Amino acid sequence: VNFALGVDVGGTNVKAIAVTAKGRVLAEASVPTGGAHLPRWKNAARSAAAAVQRELHSAPTWIGVAAPGLPAPDQRRIAHLPDRLPGLEGLDWQRFFAFPRAIPVVNDAQAALLGEVWLGAARRAQNAILLTLGTGVGGAALVDGRLLRGHLGRAGHLGHISLNPKGERDIVNTPGSLEAAIGNCSLPARSGGRFSDTETLLAATLRGDADARRIWLDSIRALAAAIASLINVLDPRTVMIGGGIANAGPRLFAPLRRHLARFEWRPAGAKVRIVAAQLGDRAGAFGAARCATTFERDPR
Amino acid sequence: VNFALGVDVGGTNVKAIAVTAKGRVLAEASVPTGGAHLPRWKNAARSAAAAVQRELHSAPTWIGVAAPGLPAPDQRRIAHLPDRLPGLEGLDWQRFFAFPRAIPVVNDAQAALLGEVWLGAARRAQNAILLTLGTGVGGAALVDGRLLRGHLGRAGHLGHISLNPKGERDIVNTPGSLEAAIGNCSLPARSGGRFSDTETLLAATLRGDADARRIWLDSIRALAAAIASLINVLDPRTVMIGGGIANAGPRLFAPLRRHLARFEWRPAGAKVRIVAAQLGDRAGAFGAARCATTFERDPR
Repeated sequence: VNFALGVDVGGTNVKAIAVTAKGRVLAEASVPTGGAHLPRWKNAARSAAAAVQRELHSAPTWIGVAAPGLPAPDQRRIAHLPDRLPGLEGLDWQRFFAFPRAIPVVNDAQAALLGEVWLGAARRAQNAILLTLGTGVGGAALVDGRLLRGHLGRAGHLGHISLNPKGERDIVNTPGSLEAAIGNCSLPARSGGRFSDTETLLAATLRGDADARRIWLDSIRALAAAIASLINVLDPRTVMIGGGIANAGPRLFAPLRRHLARFEWRPAGAKVRIVAAQLGDRAGAFGAARCATTFERDPR
Repeated sequence: VNFALGVDVGGTNVKAIAVTAKGRVLAEASVPTGGAHLPRWKNAARSAAAAVQRELHSAPTWIGVAAPGLPAPDQRRIAHLPDRLPGLEGLDWQRFFAFPRAIPVVNDAQAALLGEVWLGAARRAQNAILLTLGTGVGGAALVDGRLLRGHLGRAGHLGHISLNPKGERDIVNTPGSLEAAIGNCSLPARSGGRFSDTETLLAATLRGDADARRIWLDSIRALAAAIASLINVLDPRTVMIGGGIANAGPRLFAPLRRHLARFEWRPAGAKVRIVAAQLGDRAGAFGAARCATTFERDPR
């Protein structure tokens, strides 16, 4: 049976999923990289791909890669990723895997969105965005049926929108960004050093800790304002929220929906669907596989 | 000679421009509506179109319309525009002009962007955005060579992004929006009633008025933060700025560029072009005409 191999290169693991063009999973593997700053991630990528092929006793028809950074315009390599995964920048994946077909390379957040639109929370969507809330805030956007890539492949960096022009600048210089308002990376700063991850913060809110509650609700108000902004710019039908912080479930979604009832522009009552992403950390590999099956026909 | 008639319906005037498929202007007319809340704008639309045809002694090959509001998915009418231009909502323009061909209807800001990409400040661009700074703040986005429309046709409402989740809500409920930070509509509030339009404000800054200077520079910082955000979301190569406030010229662009040197993400040194729009209030009519010439071939 023909299958696509989706490979998702992350800082801690490389995932590989073998999936048919209809979305049936045949095999999968995950191999630790040993650290985002070591060159060993390449071995992990080879091992993950090899493990899946060994299990299936056959080679993939298509391969697609999801990776952090900005893909080159030809979508065959990552053109820009400073300071992480040494050797990824510029790597030609078709050569790396010695594969007979072109291997498309997609930004990891963009791949996760494509995965969710293929097999997850926004199937067959024409207009959807994904926000992943974790250490940082990632994102991607599908508008009018097409993934936004942009001039440098950076379209959809939804975590880097300003909610305070006078705020501190984040890793890409955005002042007072959404990432700084809700990402785990900023929680120590937001809590005067009391909390370092959202799970602990949420546990404290459940114990009735007033500071924790204020910090959490402020971050959700900021998220709601950001989503209202993105709705006005990208006009999605569905907003998907993934990443570790989305595991908060109703403690996230209930106050978020309350704020959106105030902040969202609802022309003639039309309301955007706010839903949890469904594919978790497999979304990127699914999206990469999906890209691979359609790349030669429609490279966009 | 074949020509397209671009009709731009505004609250104060209806403009009509006859232009060849290569962008040569053959004739134009502008007719006052008598007020955005009166039904007389329809007569103005007929008169403007008729004036141009009379001058040319011939009928257009194509007609396109730019209008405020959200176009329907079939792009044949405006589906949503409460409270202004009575009778525009739902109006079938092909029937209105009794025209043999389909008449595409584009949102006015989206049309202005298409006009600038065709004949103005971002010719042949694949990735460009337009911000119009006037009473309010309008906008539109072209990404990967395509105008963003979105689920309800509202994509590109770039003035309605939040720069302060705790701020007052604007006309579409966005808290502390870009429009509230720089639009003339909010200047009385931002200046404690001292100023009602940006021209007077700028005159005061030239006289050395410290308050005026602070208000102006705050609004530009907010604009810079918003543009940095939009760069991260839409990844344009060119950001065009139009509208009355853009007439401030270097007094706008110099401090804006200074702030962007701090706020903009410049991967590998890549810098977005920040330029003034070139077509002024004719941009929408040009964009409508352009749309008309390509609509039957490629209705998007």
